[in-house]
Amino acid sequence: MKRWNGWGEETCDFPLRDDALAFLASRIGPGKAVQDASFEAACASLAPSRLPEHPLIDATPATRLRNALGQSLPDWLKLRFGRIGTAPDGVAFPESAQQVRELIGFAQKNGVSLIPQGGGTSVAGHLTAPGGDKPVLAVNMTRMGRLHYLDKQSQLATFGAGVLGPDLEAQLRAHGYMLGHFPQSFEYSTLGGWVVTRSSGQQSLRYGRIEQMFAGGVVETPQGRLDIPTFPASAAGTDLREIVLGSEGRMGILTEATVRVSPLPEYEAFHAVFFPDWESAEAAVRALAQSRGGLSMLRLSNPLETVTMLALAGHKRLIGLLEGWLKLRGCGEGKCMLMLGASGPRKQARAALRSAIATCRGFKGVHVGRRMGEKWKEGRFRNVYLRNAAWQHGYVIDTVETAVDWPRVALMMRAVEAAATGVLGGMGEKVHTYTHLSHLYAQGASVYTTFVYRLGGDYETDMARWKALKHAVSMAIVDNGGTISHQHGVGSDHAPYLAAEKGAAGMAAMQALFSHFDPQGIMNPGKLLPAGQAA
Amino acid sequence: MKRWNGWGEETCDFPLRDDALAFLASRIGPGKAVQDASFEAACASLAPSRLPEHPLIDATPATRLRNALGQSLPDWLKLRFGRIGTAPDGVAFPESAQQVRELIGFAQKNGVSLIPQGGGTSVAGHLTAPGGDKPVLAVNMTRMGRLHYLDKQSQLATFGAGVLGPDLEAQLRAHGYMLGHFPQSFEYSTLGGWVVTRSSGQQSLRYGRIEQMFAGGVVETPQGRLDIPTFPASAAGTDLREIVLGSEGRMGILTEATVRVSPLPEYEAFHAVFFPDWESAEAAVRALAQSRGGLSMLRLSNPLETVTMLALAGHKRLIGLLEGWLKLRGCGEGKCMLMLGASGPRKQARAALRSAIATCRGFKGVHVGRRMGEKWKEGRFRNVYLRNAAWQHGYVIDTVETAVDWPRVALMMRAVEAAATGVLGGMGEKVHTYTHLSHLYAQGASVYTTFVYRLGGDYETDMARWKALKHAVSMAIVDNGGTISHQHGVGSDHAPYLAAEKGAAGMAAMQALFSHFDPQGIMNPGKLLPAGQAA
Repeated sequence: MKRWNGWGEETCDFPLRDDALAFLASRIGPGKAVQDASFEAACASLAPSRLPEHPLIDATPATRLRNALGQSLPDWLKLRFGRIGTAPDGVAFPESAQQVRELIGFAQKNGVSLIPQGGGTSVAGHLTAPGGDKPVLAVNMTRMGRLHYLDKQSQLATFGAGVLGPDLEAQLRAHGYMLGHFPQSFEYSTLGGWVVTRSSGQQSLRYGRIEQMFAGGVVETPQGRLDIPTFPASAAGTDLREIVLGSEGRMGILTEATVRVSPLPEYEAFHAVFFPDWESAEAAVRALAQSRGGLSMLRLSNPLETVTMLALAGHKRLIGLLEGWLKLRGCGEGKCMLMLGASGPRKQARAALRSAIATCRGFKGVHVGRRMGEKWKEGRFRNVYLRNAAWQHGYVIDTVETAVDWPRVALMMRAVEAAATGVLGGMGEKVHTYTHLSHLYAQGASVYTTFVYRLGGDYETDMARWKALKHAVSMAIVDNGGTISHQHGVGSDHAPYLAAEKGAAGMAAMQALFSHFDPQGIMNPGKLLPAGQAA
Repeated sequence: MKRWNGWGEETCDFPLRDDALAFLASRIGPGKAVQDASFEAACASLAPSRLPEHPLIDATPATRLRNALGQSLPDWLKLRFGRIGTAPDGVAFPESAQQVRELIGFAQKNGVSLIPQGGGTSVAGHLTAPGGDKPVLAVNMTRMGRLHYLDKQSQLATFGAGVLGPDLEAQLRAHGYMLGHFPQSFEYSTLGGWVVTRSSGQQSLRYGRIEQMFAGGVVETPQGRLDIPTFPASAAGTDLREIVLGSEGRMGILTEATVRVSPLPEYEAFHAVFFPDWESAEAAVRALAQSRGGLSMLRLSNPLETVTMLALAGHKRLIGLLEGWLKLRGCGEGKCMLMLGASGPRKQARAALRSAIATCRGFKGVHVGRRMGEKWKEGRFRNVYLRNAAWQHGYVIDTVETAVDWPRVALMMRAVEAAATGVLGGMGEKVHTYTHLSHLYAQGASVYTTFVYRLGGDYETDMARWKALKHAVSMAIVDNGGTISHQHGVGSDHAPYLAAEKGAAGMAAMQALFSHFDPQGIMNPGKLLPAGQAA
């Protein structure tokens, strides 16, 4: 069963080994475990449901709790300390567009707010029930996950929008196809969630961001149904898909989505290359992204992330040998690890890899072969579990991400890390912070920074720490010209910083659009646009 | 000087040779030339300007006439027969965003409608002045065409939005860069026009549609300035660029645009391949598009377009030899011509071509080498001039284009051609109609059909012919699930058919968005959304 207060399956544990713990302790001091609240106590803390009865709604505390929050650090603090705060008054699991319309009608009639959700993997506070007098209904879409139609000629697949990543790929695989969208949340996130938060997956370099995959769909809105047909491309006015993308539940509920799929790749491989320093590494990935050489993935770790990944990798002796060998080849202190991947027709993918590795050599890159790349692939959905393990030892792991044009990439990385170090330092705490570029573009890169620091041990302290950290790093992003999110969306955590990039005119346009579809303001109020601006 | 009533430079003539004329006459009968109205007579026919005087406004009839219309067939009929109808009451040529704001303020204060324009190449009636009591001001943006900033590291270039295609490429070339956007209108169309009509160029397979190139910009709207910063990608809510793209002047005036540029290609080549029949050819281009093999262009002519292009190519003896040779290799009657191109790093581009030609062979394709491809490239901006020459002999040339998913591509081609043949046949006229797929996608293709038929010789007859033809082919597009435009936009000619794809909900959303920026409805009223829906 899915953990109610952490990541993933209850039966899956990936403990931190002693040397990894020693590494963390040496960086930020020893952690002190805290006692988590029990599921029963958390259930008992929920206020009684204010929803009128409805055959589609489950208002039991257990169901409400399991659909109350996402995976952001404040969500975790609420769950772990049993301080849930607001929670939806009930949860519906619609099985058809008809039922979704019925729920919207119910909400309109009864003054209820709706929070659409999928797998509950948001790390930006998309799912928090607003306070206030209105009852809140969570609409969990995961029962609408069937493959409705596969058009092999056009490589289009139509799914219920609540389909989870693995179910989506399994249904396609049976026909010899794949979508190729692999965010780290892949195992628990849904197609609909990806679309409305503009998600991006690890192999976006070949398969595209969800924006490029989303070909059309159906949205049920308080003002009626919006039906978006599929075209290969169009010059006919506003692209309605773009109104749905990134709408974060504010205009309605996406019930069906058609996506551009690909035949299963003949060949797929991931390789690792090390660089002696950040400057060479950044120049190399820029050259690779700008050459459009047909890779499917590029992921560059900065020196401290490289050290951390090697320290956590296990196989201490092997890693020691590797580091010795790398040192002889010029990659010692300050080295940076690049993972690169290719996927597709064998000849094409292998040529892309060959050419990329040759390019890397021109920037002092040292190719260490396929084995580390495959290790990375194996662990790519497992790393999230480290968060559970770290918590058990009194550490929290949090991340932020942005994207900027090339001239600001390194500045941004340093600014975000420095902001975190500064703000936690001011509280007498150390932070272990490191960064990778998760998605590479000709124009720039996403900058994805991780923070590991110690739990204070009580809800108020830890929430205050997180708030201070979040504000400091978000201001660093804004001040350095980054977008407040490259792949996680806005939700409530990023909403205060959105106006910095959209401007007053952009914010007002978004508000006008969502108010058009949702004049009563019942759809996920307070998310994306600051609460004060809700209709 | 630019022709006032036709395409291109007055000094450039590309006459139809006798054998080409004989070919046309054999297909649709002999044409009868008509006497064009004189520039002076057309000027004299304009109603007096109703605009108050303003230092930025030129209200002379000559300037008003030269900025009154575009290049659609009804625009031509109005110009050639001297039946201009409505025209703007004046034209402004702003040189700064400040002046654009001043003009918007002037329009708001004086109840004036504004029609933003660039090079006047619209073929969908974007520029027609609406009738009614309100004075109309055309805002010609071509004096705002400077390269403001080139960020080589991020491959971003910021231009005044009125920059014409050749000026844009020349300014970039001086720095070793290019944009790579080559619609057939390239020589007279502007960056701003491309953005607000969602234009697509011949090498979009590598360089992207304008949607992929447009990274940010500035729009002056009646509600103030919308400033869209550049990010490599973002998950932060609605992508404001998408509100500007395809807005066709309805929300404001784009004054500045930042585009994603590329280094000048090391290598560029175009090749021709012939196929024995449409079925093999379509299967081949689908395979090529779906393999993402790195080509920059694919352009497939159907049998009659192939015949026509060979007939108009000149070099009758050489073409005869080619056709004999092709026939021996299985490409006789019914053969289809494919142009394919690659552009970029030498090794990459050559590999893409080699692999593509090998793929073609698997579909019975016969490679005839580079020469015909280069000939095509040479003539690619010259073919438009044929319209002038045809008119001189009493023939009109018109085109429509759409895009559909693969299962409907061939159906669409036949339906559009049959609709044209049917409607003109009903009027006792023949039409020479042929089609190419101008842009190829994994999902489907654009379907671009040309019609050549005889001028009736008087304005009423010819306008009635065009209206009947336009309606018939537009209904064929709509009925077969195509978008009403893949690359030309909506304007006034396509506006009646837009609701078929957007639905009532989509139309209302667009209206809400534009009304938000332009509550008085002064921006290009009646375009894109049917006039009845104007705010």
